[in-house]
Amino acid sequence: MSANSVLLDFSLDPTRINDEVSRKDIVKLCKEHLEKFISGLKITYDMLTDDGYLCILNAPGAIITTIRFFNQGLITINIEYYRAESEAPKITFEQIKSLENNLRLKLEAKRSKHLPPIKRGSYIDVYLTSSDERVIEYDIDKVLYDKRSDFQKIQIVHSKSLGNMLVLDELQNIAEADLIYTETLMRRGVENYKDKEICILGGGDGALLYELLKEEPKHVVMLEIDDLVMEACNKYMNSICGDVLEKRKSDNYEIVVGDCMMYLNKFIKEGRKFDYVFGDLTDIPISDTPTGEIWDFIRVILESSFKVLKPDGKFMTHGNGVSCPESLQMYEDQLARLTPKVNFTKCSAFVPSFMEEWVFYQVQCASEAAASV
Amino acid sequence: MSANSVLLDFSLDPTRINDEVSRKDIVKLCKEHLEKFISGLKITYDMLTDDGYLCILNAPGAIITTIRFFNQGLITINIEYYRAESEAPKITFEQIKSLENNLRLKLEAKRSKHLPPIKRGSYIDVYLTSSDERVIEYDIDKVLYDKRSDFQKIQIVHSKSLGNMLVLDELQNIAEADLIYTETLMRRGVENYKDKEICILGGGDGALLYELLKEEPKHVVMLEIDDLVMEACNKYMNSICGDVLEKRKSDNYEIVVGDCMMYLNKFIKEGRKFDYVFGDLTDIPISDTPTGEIWDFIRVILESSFKVLKPDGKFMTHGNGVSCPESLQMYEDQLARLTPKVNFTKCSAFVPSFMEEWVFYQVQCASEAAASV
Repeated sequence: MSANSVLLDFSLDPTRINDEVSRKDIVKLCKEHLEKFISGLKITYDMLTDDGYLCILNAPGAIITTIRFFNQGLITINIEYYRAESEAPKITFEQIKSLENNLRLKLEAKRSKHLPPIKRGSYIDVYLTSSDERVIEYDIDKVLYDKRSDFQKIQIVHSKSLGNMLVLDELQNIAEADLIYTETLMRRGVENYKDKEICILGGGDGALLYELLKEEPKHVVMLEIDDLVMEACNKYMNSICGDVLEKRKSDNYEIVVGDCMMYLNKFIKEGRKFDYVFGDLTDIPISDTPTGEIWDFIRVILESSFKVLKPDGKFMTHGNGVSCPESLQMYEDQLARLTPKVNFTKCSAFVPSFMEEWVFYQVQCASEAAASV
Repeated sequence: MSANSVLLDFSLDPTRINDEVSRKDIVKLCKEHLEKFISGLKITYDMLTDDGYLCILNAPGAIITTIRFFNQGLITINIEYYRAESEAPKITFEQIKSLENNLRLKLEAKRSKHLPPIKRGSYIDVYLTSSDERVIEYDIDKVLYDKRSDFQKIQIVHSKSLGNMLVLDELQNIAEADLIYTETLMRRGVENYKDKEICILGGGDGALLYELLKEEPKHVVMLEIDDLVMEACNKYMNSICGDVLEKRKSDNYEIVVGDCMMYLNKFIKEGRKFDYVFGDLTDIPISDTPTGEIWDFIRVILESSFKVLKPDGKFMTHGNGVSCPESLQMYEDQLARLTPKVNFTKCSAFVPSFMEEWVFYQVQCASEAAASV
């Protein structure tokens, strides 16, 4: 079940829409064109607003249309109606297109626009948001897993083009089509993991662990707090994680369920050292902490990681979308504040399920980075 | 300038929203929470609808909110206001998120959703549509070129994550980040173009020609009808087309401005033959012809192409998004109807600017395809 909101808009010369006579003509015109698809339309209410005019049209079947005039030179039309799962749309996409085209010509609009109907209230949520708060409608057609853990809301959904996809707290994390994400994070072909000791912070989807093991490292320890994420991925994401989440442990890896900070501190005490530490935690902290604390957390993770890294060890992590330069800069500012001093390189890749170009960081102690040049 | 439409919805037990008393309580609750961000809210109108209830709230600054109850168990809230280019949003994204969270808890909603504000009426159009009519908001921040040719509306826009992007009649065609598109279309590394004779139908962005020339073919002729597309791409898309559109001709290629069907017929008469023909025309025909005619056109293109192909020649083309299996099937049905009989292979790649996995076809005469196995 969902309500459909059909949104159109038309930009006109402001002088054409802010007197009553032309407004009436335009409403009449809109109504005539709407009536080609919606029968029995009646204006049930209208009002002057601070910046224009609004009227409401009602039609049998509870198709409610609002037409709003903005004196600045814009008309918005919103058509909203309920559509049961099995029902055909009351207005087809072709009809929306043709409504826009016809009205643009009749209104002599400078520009016009229609959007695909916005689906509201359906169990399968197809709208996710990019790192810079853009709306993206995914071709999600099934919800395979839907549970709330102590830490977050966990969903595995199926996308026609991306395969199964892990969504944590409404944020797309990884999909079956995202091998490029893991390969860019680990810099496959650039870094040599053979016989290396590696620690993964987070990484509950298992993809990084699975790909790293193909490179024959000496040992990988993965610290993941959320057992349910691993349960879900083990069930529905085997094409990206193989059986590593099922087995949990072998001669050359071990998955530890727990708070990575606690284990990092344990490793520091024990003097345990790694060649690589991967920061593969979720981007956005689970609780709704203020910005300052997020960055404190990120800095503490970085500082602790360097305490368990060998002198020439590397911290590898994902950053943010290239469309968020401010956020990337903030991360780089944190790196600049670390002691001892670090250097970093970065690279990027277009990650299918993110629908954007993502930046990845490789961080190393400054003295070692200089020595290795 | 643009109007912002902020859309939220909440799914509730139907019994909780279809009597007047609980409805009044819910409206009061919504109003209280809206008032945290919007001052001076007043209910100016309400009505019973065929499937529920609608009320309109008005606030100074012409912030107009409609709250609609659907008896099926859904409440939609639409907040719409005008936002000048230089103005901060009247309701921030953080406020929208918190409004959703708070109301979900208070309403004891089974699910809830907010979308990033829909921007309407702005000169820079950030919303494009996928092959299966999904809305995708791009990080477009500049319009570099905007002209209407005899054939189509041509825009070059700048996307923060995709670079410059060619948009024809509101359809994303190719972006600077789309090398994978061209490489998959030509099957780089699989097909051998050295010393081959090639014909490109369409291809006005120049990317295919540019990449093919790197493979040292004997000669490429490109048949593009729209000179303005080439002008635009030559100006703003040099990273994908080099200088091939500027030069138009060299010892091993020639760009012909004209209708590819006319030239194909000319080649057929002359008995001119190619090793490869590329169908790199726009997906959707320029005129608003009915579906039947589109497929007739596609079939004629295929038939004519095989008349200018050497017996072992290949027709290479792009199909559609994997999320449109019906459309792909229709194309394959056309292939099955061709005489002489053809075989085809297909492959797919995620094309960044399309934001979807795209299917590409390689078609060959059945006898030759069999012989080459």
